[in-house]
Amino acid sequence: MSRFWSSLTHDLKPYVPGEQPRMADLVKLNTNENPLGPSPRALEAIRDAAADTLRLYPDPQATALRAALAAYHGVRPEQVFVGNGSDEVLAHTFVALLKHDAPLLFPDITYSFYPVYCRLFGIDYETVPLDQAMQMRIADYRRPAGAIIIPNPNAPTGIALSRAEIATLLDEHPDIPVVVDEAYVDFGAETAIPLVASRRNLLVVQTMSKSRALAGLRVGYAIGDADLIDALTRVKDSFNSYPLGRPAQAGAIASIADEAYFQQSRLCVIEGRERLTRGLKAAGFDVLPSLANFVFARHPAYEGAALAAALREQAVIVRHFSAPRISDFLRITVGTDEQIDRLLSALAEIVGQHEKS
Amino acid sequence: MSRFWSSLTHDLKPYVPGEQPRMADLVKLNTNENPLGPSPRALEAIRDAAADTLRLYPDPQATALRAALAAYHGVRPEQVFVGNGSDEVLAHTFVALLKHDAPLLFPDITYSFYPVYCRLFGIDYETVPLDQAMQMRIADYRRPAGAIIIPNPNAPTGIALSRAEIATLLDEHPDIPVVVDEAYVDFGAETAIPLVASRRNLLVVQTMSKSRALAGLRVGYAIGDADLIDALTRVKDSFNSYPLGRPAQAGAIASIADEAYFQQSRLCVIEGRERLTRGLKAAGFDVLPSLANFVFARHPAYEGAALAAALREQAVIVRHFSAPRISDFLRITVGTDEQIDRLLSALAEIVGQHEKS
Repeated sequence: MSRFWSSLTHDLKPYVPGEQPRMADLVKLNTNENPLGPSPRALEAIRDAAADTLRLYPDPQATALRAALAAYHGVRPEQVFVGNGSDEVLAHTFVALLKHDAPLLFPDITYSFYPVYCRLFGIDYETVPLDQAMQMRIADYRRPAGAIIIPNPNAPTGIALSRAEIATLLDEHPDIPVVVDEAYVDFGAETAIPLVASRRNLLVVQTMSKSRALAGLRVGYAIGDADLIDALTRVKDSFNSYPLGRPAQAGAIASIADEAYFQQSRLCVIEGRERLTRGLKAAGFDVLPSLANFVFARHPAYEGAALAAALREQAVIVRHFSAPRISDFLRITVGTDEQIDRLLSALAEIVGQHEKS
Repeated sequence: MSRFWSSLTHDLKPYVPGEQPRMADLVKLNTNENPLGPSPRALEAIRDAAADTLRLYPDPQATALRAALAAYHGVRPEQVFVGNGSDEVLAHTFVALLKHDAPLLFPDITYSFYPVYCRLFGIDYETVPLDQAMQMRIADYRRPAGAIIIPNPNAPTGIALSRAEIATLLDEHPDIPVVVDEAYVDFGAETAIPLVASRRNLLVVQTMSKSRALAGLRVGYAIGDADLIDALTRVKDSFNSYPLGRPAQAGAIASIADEAYFQQSRLCVIEGRERLTRGLKAAGFDVLPSLANFVFARHPAYEGAALAAALREQAVIVRHFSAPRISDFLRITVGTDEQIDRLLSALAEIVGQHEKS
């Protein structure tokens, strides 16, 4: 508490990201990073951007990157917005499109940054409970609302809605903005981007941090009707003219151009997820049906916090949330085959020890 | 206008950055970029960061970069905040520290992003007129205020206050936050950072875009009492956990380590400024006494807009502002010797033509 702070600052409850520990030989499965590296072409483009031209500001409109994303996704450049990671894109989206008199709706169990944005920007919101199977149900969103945001697949559950369900949600709410946060969509779920052509109220947010393994570069984007993109641009240009530096723009463009690498990478993660799921089930875990690059799992006989702490003692870091309904779950990122093996053998030991005691 | 926008979005009047034209053989003197490139060590560090580790999120606290900045400026790491360019640092500062019941004060002629932030964040402000010589006068800030922000040197005038004057300003306003925006301080003005040790209400904002020639990388920072930095961190962690990617953190650290290059670079710009000033004065211009990497100059016989347009026809781009009091001025970045020569000869031709007609 400080007399120099604005009153809002006192009221904030900041988001807490998964930790980035600096331990050697760590199996880090807590922040949904890609076990494979970025496209070699992206790395080369970043190296090329480390040149005398860094003395110049980057293109504030990121024209070339937006054109590349537009071509890739089959939309026009004016339907594309880019930002400093999808978190910044989401932040601008909350300001530009999600603040209305009626409350914003999102799931009760979802990306925990959403209520943080609401507090920062003074947005009234209501949460919509997941059903007993931890799934979002479109019918539950039939209530007065100023806007809706849902992640698809949802985090931390990993469970996805089909594109047909998203279309139904849009059809039932044609007069309010509906944002679909697709951070994890490339690992098996259906993107809603094809619906943008026919729905003026749809904004789809994606990131290069997960499927393109560029979490360290900070590039996210949104695709929607040009009118929605215009709103985001107005907010961005009232906040920071140049959110993406030259290395970020260059690396992102090169990543998009390397489609073969992208496909190989995401299929590898999908295979790893299936192997991880089988291993967890064999160890007695309930595993939610994930289409993300992580799984959400619990063991009927063990508390989530205790399991996470025991794993940590074996240098395996997973994410645990203490929130109601999910405190017995672990969110486990799909790692390399070796990391998956180390996680599973660590869990086998923990469960085995406990059964002996 | 759109029914999907938040009401705030309709009210925004975004900042317009200097254009980034893509013409060949352009003399680009409109956005205060450094004519020299970044430190070779910074470029090497960015290249090294283009590696497999980009799949991992960057350190959200930028621990190593903040430690490097703290050591460089003689403060503690908890007195340092970093962001995605000083524009983002300023944006968070407006939210965290500059929104109070009483109005925020800043000069009437200053960085034109300040009123844009105020509109975005709903901050009441009053402008304090520069005096007849286009200087800030500390005495003019003796009025009820919730906070004060001044650039030093001021932009676009280039005129600086001394550290003693800043100290007086702080002494006269001990109970409100005072922010000194030092984007251009390394070109000859006195930084207020030594005052941080004794003033709990002082925040100093700097950037790596100008004197360190890293505009394309996007790194800015603030230095102040740990209590002020804590406020910025709370806002940042409610907005975007990872504002600086791995290449940005690595490049910034390496730039700070290359003190010899930094000193050489800034002295070169200072020499160029003096040469540019002499040339402009010889051509009949009034030139304000600049301590920045640009000069603000007007010709008694020519309108600023007409001069800027005529220069543009000769592929020389300078910045012109149409605001009252400064519409006859040009803001001209200090370029290379060759760029200065091309500007001066273009101006000589423009003035010469007119005198003949």
